[in-house]
Amino acid sequence: MRYGVFDSGLGGMTVLGQLIKMMPYNDYIYFGDVARVPYGTRSDKTIIKYASEDAAFLYKKNVDAIIIACGTVSSVAHEHLKSIYDIPVYSVIDFAVQSAAKNTKNGKIGVIGTQATVNSRMFEKKLTGMKSDLEVYSVACPLFVPLIESGISPDDEISRSVAARYLAPLIEKKVDTIIMGCTHYPIYAETLKSVYPDADYINVGRETAIQLSRDTHRTEKGNVEIYVSEISQAFYEIAEIMGFSVSEGTIKTVELG
Amino acid sequence: MRYGVFDSGLGGMTVLGQLIKMMPYNDYIYFGDVARVPYGTRSDKTIIKYASEDAAFLYKKNVDAIIIACGTVSSVAHEHLKSIYDIPVYSVIDFAVQSAAKNTKNGKIGVIGTQATVNSRMFEKKLTGMKSDLEVYSVACPLFVPLIESGISPDDEISRSVAARYLAPLIEKKVDTIIMGCTHYPIYAETLKSVYPDADYINVGRETAIQLSRDTHRTEKGNVEIYVSEISQAFYEIAEIMGFSVSEGTIKTVELG
Repeated sequence: MRYGVFDSGLGGMTVLGQLIKMMPYNDYIYFGDVARVPYGTRSDKTIIKYASEDAAFLYKKNVDAIIIACGTVSSVAHEHLKSIYDIPVYSVIDFAVQSAAKNTKNGKIGVIGTQATVNSRMFEKKLTGMKSDLEVYSVACPLFVPLIESGISPDDEISRSVAARYLAPLIEKKVDTIIMGCTHYPIYAETLKSVYPDADYINVGRETAIQLSRDTHRTEKGNVEIYVSEISQAFYEIAEIMGFSVSEGTIKTVELG
Repeated sequence: MRYGVFDSGLGGMTVLGQLIKMMPYNDYIYFGDVARVPYGTRSDKTIIKYASEDAAFLYKKNVDAIIIACGTVSSVAHEHLKSIYDIPVYSVIDFAVQSAAKNTKNGKIGVIGTQATVNSRMFEKKLTGMKSDLEVYSVACPLFVPLIESGISPDDEISRSVAARYLAPLIEKKVDTIIMGCTHYPIYAETLKSVYPDADYINVGRETAIQLSRDTHRTEKGNVEIYVSEISQAFYEIAEIMGFSVSEGTIKTVELG
């Protein structure tokens, strides 16, 4: 299989990392729209426009399937992209939602994501569509990405204060399962757990990789290509924080739009 | 006079507010490139490209002069824009630099701005070009804009912790004057003063308005038009935080690029 994987920026590299780990035999082409990051504060119209350009770029590279490695695009533009292409388009939401619904004991699920993800109510729709009695509480966490990108570590006291602030309403509701609905957030997993250890945290990239790996088996190692719309100021540092070794793939820049 | 004023987003509205306050008799056309904000983490090439499109939009509206109401663009693209146009192009840096050099007693000046502004070393060049014995210390404060845009107030304890972290190296150097080199930062003036009261804080928009108002005098009230490349999710709230009453001007959207 040759997968096209895209994100608004570099957060999707946490998904790419999980995919390579569980399916090293596939080929991957990653696109990160670094020049136009972040998507999570933009209007739905703009997000759909950008996501369509990202997906078109990958489609032209003859991929067999597209994986939307971005919670915001998965929430806002997945239906649109599915309707355009004759190849599978996977969102990171769907598998995470299944896993969360299976995991919860008390039926109370928290979702953390960008403002656009929370506004879309897509996680709520999918979760309650699966089990109508689930209680879902969503919180936008717009500072997590800027914190990482400005070099403040997830275990810094400032990051902890921000995490505590965001989790407060979910702790109050006693959710037992929290979906990290933005692909940057796995970096905060330990910070979140230290603030609220009573929940299980669902990594959307990991769930996607687990599900997709069920279908395919091969042994040889595949090829990885990375494209970004811009090499931003802290590109290499951030890619590394995302747990992605840049030496794992070639990096090329491409202009879209 | 008919001024064209632009910024990467809404921070420039703090400059527009000062201009209207000191020169209510002028006409203003503001452009905020909300769809592509933030510029401060982007490459110089991208910043120059975006700034050129912003300035071209205003020039076509027949303005008499352009004011770059953005610290990042002033640092990175001012020379380029000046070389293109046959009307004056003012940056918010120049007047602030003059004022800071005049204000300092101990010759130690701090500059706070975006990563791109700090990387450009433009404030250092202009300050030491004016007085070669000035000591200039610059700190990038990439979290201030996301904090504001995510609804965390400047007097919140998280904002204070972030401000204290950023100011620490300037406090250590005992600077007596700090240039707020990004047009969003005047919103943080009180927070910064509470963390480090021993410095005078220079508001780049205010200095620009003071200098420009010396040349012109009229009495009737001018017209204000606001254009943005996108009405973002929190547009109206942010405009208000910027001290700008949206009812002061008409808001229209326009697509660039």
